Formats: sequence, structure tokens, C-alpha cells
Amino acid sequence: MSQLSPTDRTKIKRVPHKAATDTAELYELLDQSLVAHVGIVEDGQPFVLPVVAARVDDQLLLHGSSASRLMKTIASGAPICVTLTILDGLVLARSAFESSMNYRSAMILGSARSLEGQEKLDAFLHLTEKLFPERSEELRLTSQQESKATLMLSMPLNEASVKISKKFPADPAEEYSLPIWAGVLPIKHSYGEPIPDPNLIPGIPVPDYISRWPEGRT
Amino acid sequence: MSQLSPTDRTKIKRVPHKAATDTAELYELLDQSLVAHVGIVEDGQPFVLPVVAARVDDQLLLHGSSASRLMKTIASGAPICVTLTILDGLVLARSAFESSMNYRSAMILGSARSLEGQEKLDAFLHLTEKLFPERSEELRLTSQQESKATLMLSMPLNEASVKISKKFPADPAEEYSLPIWAGVLPIKHSYGEPIPDPNLIPGIPVPDYISRWPEGRT
Repeated sequence: MSQLSPTDRTKIKRVPHKAATDTAELYELLDQSLVAHVGIVEDGQPFVLPVVAARVDDQLLLHGSSASRLMKTIASGAPICVTLTILDGLVLARSAFESSMNYRSAMILGSARSLEGQEKLDAFLHLTEKLFPERSEELRLTSQQESKATLMLSMPLNEASVKISKKFPADPAEEYSLPIWAGVLPIKHSYGEPIPDPNLIPGIPVPDYISRWPEGRT
Repeated sequence: MSQLSPTDRTKIKRVPHKAATDTAELYELLDQSLVAHVGIVEDGQPFVLPVVAARVDDQLLLHGSSASRLMKTIASGAPICVTLTILDGLVLARSAFESSMNYRSAMILGSARSLEGQEKLDAFLHLTEKLFPERSEELRLTSQQESKATLMLSMPLNEASVKISKKFPADPAEEYSLPIWAGVLPIKHSYGEPIPDPNLIPGIPVPDYISRWPEGRT
């Protein structure tokens, strides 16, 4: 199992037992995440943008409009922080103070580079396959002209930390005897029933492959 | 209906039809969000932290450990950006390029102040009531000593923008006749079955109020 190499900046100092260091855990979280929160600095002011994201091998693809000022700053290679969080549950302890949440979160530091030409077209295909598995076989793929209208960025995953909190309440010993229900209320992320486009031509069934898309993505 | 006042920094320039300006829409999004992504700058490097958040009136409460270096920087009154995003669905268009996502996202700029004393204890009660409605009646509330071990921050909501994307695919006119299923695959956030703490004393039922907690929070 390969290991992430936490730097001084990504080492989790506060609650080390929450830190997961296996690359496999980072990849699993990234593969369940559809959106990342990307931090960027402009004139000393931080901005945090939600950006469509997908992992391809050891890179994270970030996709956005080339008309967005902040996306252009990200594309310029400025230092960024990409954070992805999936909430898994509410932890109901016997006191307000010990009540908390179960979650998985990754923080990736570095910078992104803007893809061009064939590499960019390839990235569009990878992104489509990751977000909408098996669907790219029937879609019209992104044209050179469409490709130019957007930014496709790639960021390495070598400076990253993962925090996973997956626990039952940790109440003070003397409070376990209190007559208060305690436990975990899971939070689930699932797909609803597909809603056809009102302009869909008649007789087109919902594709089978949707039923095979990974559950729990958000 | 009160209106947010977008400043130059929060005005959504790129896709103005996606910008929602009603305070009610901001509040609805905040009230469905359990976690915010908070951006902060340290030595020119942006960091983005997932932080437990709850709206109380026209303030956003942010709660975290006082041992966290980045939380302490946030508490110092440094400029921050708080972004909250809820993903509502995958938009399956007839081409890769037009495929997208439905989401609601808020970006709030400003700075937070650290609450102290009775104001901090009151904020703990508000936070507990927002995250775990009706439960604070049976919980032991946060003590002065516990309160000192954490940070409770308050941020005003006066500089904020909201983007809502809720749409069917917008394909080029000539592609509507293609025999490809198109529409929206909703993403739902729901609660699973409550899981009792293995150390729960016997005979304590799951509380009724959990069934009344707002659906769709994440």
C-alpha cells in the first residue's frame, strides 16, 4: 500500500488518530466526490470555489469556465488548497459537548496546470467517464471548439492529508449510565429516480448503466 | 423579501442567471448545511477547512478546536471566505460538453469574531438546537470548562452571494432529436437507520424527535 508523504503543511498535528495516510483512502474519498472546494488568494483575500473534480490516476482534474476570474487565477499556477469532505453521520452523544459528526475529508496542497490540445481532449473524456461511467460511449464527445471555451486543470496528489472520523460517542465514563439515547445517525447520499428531460424524444429508455453508477457520491 | 447586497467581490459576474439574491435562499441553504468550507490565508498559502456551521438569525456560527492552528487564525479576525455547497443532481445532456450538475452554493466573505463568556454558552445551545433539534432538552449542556476547550466563532452574513443551478440539459437545438436519454439524476441526502451506541444502557428507545429532523441536510 503506497503512503502519502505529509509535509509540514499537511501533517495533521491536532488529532493524529484521525489522520489516514494510505493513498488508497485518499483515492476512495476522491472517487466518491463530485465537487471539490478550491481555495485561492487574491490580493490577500481568500476565496473558496466549488469546482467539479475527478481523479485520474495520481492527478485530480478540475473543470471550470475560462470566463471565471478565479478559475483563471487557479489556472495561472498560483498556490491552491483543494478540500473535499463527505459527511457520513451525526454522532449523538449524551452531552452537547461530545456530540459531533462522522466525516471523511482530504486537503490537497499544490498548484494546478492548465491542459491544452490533445491532453485536454483526453482529460474531457476521462472526466466524463468518471462522472458518468459508461455514458461516453453514446455521447457526442467534446469538440476542439467546445474545449477552448473551458478550463481543464490537472493537479498532482503528492501533498495531501486525509482525516476520517468514524466513531461512536466518547462520553465521560460516568455519563454512560444516563438514560439518554446515544449513537450514530447515518447520513446517506443516494440517487433519486431519473427525471427525463421534458424535450426527450419518445421511446428512449433510461440507460442501464445508470444503475451501475457508484452509490454514495456527492 | 430582504435582499443581499452583493459587493464587487461577491457579485456573480459570469452567469448572472444563476445568482440568487434573496436572503431567504441564502438562509435555506445554510439551514440545510451542516458543514462549511472555510478559506484562510497563511503566509500567502490558502487553506480550506471543513468546519461545523449553523445559522442563528443573521449570523453564522462556526465551531472548532482551539488547538487547531488554522482555527486560531480564523478566530483572530483575519479575512475569510466561507463556502457551502449542496449537490442536487447530475444533469445528463446529449453531449459530454453540456453535461453538468445541479447545485446550490453560497459564498460569504468577511471575518469571524470569537465568542466568550455567556454569549459563547448561548451559542453552544443555539448550535446544538440547530444541529440536533429538540435534543438539547435532554442533554447535559456545555459547561464553562468544556466551553473553554473550543472556539465558537460568529460571522455576519451581510456580504454573500448564492448560486443556484436547477435545470434540465441545454443542448444545441439540432441535438434534441438524437436517440440519447437525457434528463436529471437527482442526488439525495437522507438519514439512515439510527445505530445505537454499543454501550447504550438497555431499554432506551430512539427518540421521536429524530423523525422530525429536517431531511436533506448535509
